[in-house]
Amino acid sequence: MKLLQDRIAREGRVLPGNIVKVDGFLNHRVDPALLRALAKEFKAHFAGKEIDLIMTCEASGIPIATITAEEFGVPMLFVKKAKSGNIGGDVYTSEIQSYTYGKTVTLTCSKSWLHEGDRVLIVDDFMARGEAMRGLRDIIAAAGAELVGVGIAIEKGFQGGGDRLRAEGVDCLSLAIIEEAGENGIRFRE
Amino acid sequence: MKLLQDRIAREGRVLPGNIVKVDGFLNHRVDPALLRALAKEFKAHFAGKEIDLIMTCEASGIPIATITAEEFGVPMLFVKKAKSGNIGGDVYTSEIQSYTYGKTVTLTCSKSWLHEGDRVLIVDDFMARGEAMRGLRDIIAAAGAELVGVGIAIEKGFQGGGDRLRAEGVDCLSLAIIEEAGENGIRFRE
Repeated sequence: MKLLQDRIAREGRVLPGNIVKVDGFLNHRVDPALLRALAKEFKAHFAGKEIDLIMTCEASGIPIATITAEEFGVPMLFVKKAKSGNIGGDVYTSEIQSYTYGKTVTLTCSKSWLHEGDRVLIVDDFMARGEAMRGLRDIIAAAGAELVGVGIAIEKGFQGGGDRLRAEGVDCLSLAIIEEAGENGIRFRE
Repeated sequence: MKLLQDRIAREGRVLPGNIVKVDGFLNHRVDPALLRALAKEFKAHFAGKEIDLIMTCEASGIPIATITAEEFGVPMLFVKKAKSGNIGGDVYTSEIQSYTYGKTVTLTCSKSWLHEGDRVLIVDDFMARGEAMRGLRDIIAAAGAELVGVGIAIEKGFQGGGDRLRAEGVDCLSLAIIEEAGENGIRFRE
């Protein structure tokens, strides 16, 4: 998606460790008009499928998942990363390795809001190695729900998570796929 | 706001410790159509004021803050609670006591996205004692930005945070104020 690629090229910064920093419009300060445009792309791509629920992980997936849920006219469920006193005991969990936080994180989701047969679209701001995605899919499988597809704003193609999903037959739409991020700047997949 | 009060009365549950659980539509599974209606209330109330930025705390404030930012046509900035490898070193911080997580949490905000003179509307899903609010106001003050007002979906009136803000002259709009939550159910402020 050219709009997003242009925005990344203009405002994104590459940090050591192949980190692509887009915290001015996507995951710290957020541009809701951009998110609306991205959500409309997801809507167009997945329009032929029945979707009951948008799922994401806290925290930075929440803005784009919220706007996307409004586009589809369905609820958004965000899986929690921290142990909250409010969530209660009857939960699905999955342990993942967080690249951003450098530790193991337990994803937690109340059984009250994810049911057998629910058709789920996962939406997230970023995908790298696909650890958060693996955790979300574990939880969807544990509930007996169905993964309809995956919508990602920015995929780091060189870290393999998206291609592994596609190789498994998952309908994964990433609106910008970064093939290289280093001293020579950012190069997108054609 | 009757729409929100009715939704709380119908779907909210009271847990021991005066916890009001609304995780089916506000802070775990989220109803974007409800959030849009709440955001329009904030827009109507604060319409006469110039606002440059909507601010909130991760994670459960993010959905309503995102939709509200779209209503106002301004960016949304969410302050982080966890130490992320991506945020960088040049930050404002404030330590708060988290009621939900039962520990001290450091709010962190990059200096890149909050500037002197910015007119800020804080939006959050909940306010109880007002600890998160205190932390956000610390950060706004440290940046030399200006707090224009506060928009809250659900205020727990009996915990005092909202009334302390109003006593200080802050324009604080809470769309539902719960005066009592216990064995006798939920009672709203008139």
